[in-house]
Amino acid sequence: MELLKQRIRRQGRALPGGVIQVDAFLNHQIDPMLADAIADEFAGRFQGEHISKVLTVEASGIAFAVLVALRLQVPLVFAKKRPGSNQGGAEQYTAAVRSYTKGGVNTIGVSREYLSAADRVLVIDDFMAMGEAAEGLCSLIHQAGAALAGVGVVIEKGFQPGGDRLRAQGIRVEALARIRSIGPDGDILFDGEQ
Amino acid sequence: MELLKQRIRRQGRALPGGVIQVDAFLNHQIDPMLADAIADEFAGRFQGEHISKVLTVEASGIAFAVLVALRLQVPLVFAKKRPGSNQGGAEQYTAAVRSYTKGGVNTIGVSREYLSAADRVLVIDDFMAMGEAAEGLCSLIHQAGAALAGVGVVIEKGFQPGGDRLRAQGIRVEALARIRSIGPDGDILFDGEQ
Repeated sequence: MELLKQRIRRQGRALPGGVIQVDAFLNHQIDPMLADAIADEFAGRFQGEHISKVLTVEASGIAFAVLVALRLQVPLVFAKKRPGSNQGGAEQYTAAVRSYTKGGVNTIGVSREYLSAADRVLVIDDFMAMGEAAEGLCSLIHQAGAALAGVGVVIEKGFQPGGDRLRAQGIRVEALARIRSIGPDGDILFDGEQ
Repeated sequence: MELLKQRIRRQGRALPGGVIQVDAFLNHQIDPMLADAIADEFAGRFQGEHISKVLTVEASGIAFAVLVALRLQVPLVFAKKRPGSNQGGAEQYTAAVRSYTKGGVNTIGVSREYLSAADRVLVIDDFMAMGEAAEGLCSLIHQAGAALAGVGVVIEKGFQPGGDRLRAQGIRVEALARIRSIGPDGDILFDGEQ
């Protein structure tokens, strides 16, 4: 998605340790017009997939996921981290997810009420690096007996193994910008670029 | 907002301790068509307020805030809980926020880059009860020297003091559904209802 790549080139910052900071427009401050174009692109790519539900995990995936869900006219479910006391005792599907940027392991959970064997689910998230969040979400879908239509991520760090590990399992992964490498001067190179 | 009240009556559940569970359509599973109507209502109420930025806090406020920001064609900023290691050392405005449903105190933070004295900010959140999250967000705006246009909340628990405490400070608070009380049988009564 060219518009997104341009924005990453202009406002993204490569930090030490392979971190790509896109706080200015994607995951702290969000440009809603760009987010809307991103949702449009996802909806187009997964058109005809008979999706019944969009699934993401709090927090920064929610902005994109709600816009995709609105286009597909299906509910959005977001998995919660550290499931709270507000759940009314409903049982949950849960998965452990390691965070490489923040450190530690989170439990993510979805109430059993909101995912079922009748669902065909599209996973949406902002970032894919090691793929742990997406794998956790896929695990929740699997536990529910639901079908996984695919995984849409705004930015994939192609130099980390998450996306390819999911593809190797036969999962359709669509990344709107796939970063191949970060150059020595911090310049961000996308797939297909020299 | 009648559409919202109908939905709360039909799918909301009053739990012990004054908790209103609206997980089915508002803050775990989200109906994006309802969220879009909610954003439309907020945009209408704050029309002409020359808003330059929408501010919320992760996680469940983001879905509504991004739709409001899209309508107003201004950036959305969401404050982060437990600011992570992905901030590139940028300085933040921070505020302490007590959570009554989950317990404990969170620090919420916004990078100084994304709020400035030139901004006129609309705060959007899903729930207002004790008002601690909204007060924390207002504090971030104050620290930045920005102007506060008002606070829009989807549901206000009118039997808890948060909304009125903000109004007493001269802050404009718009609640799309204001719950007056929960009856002995768990029936939810809105302002103006017997």
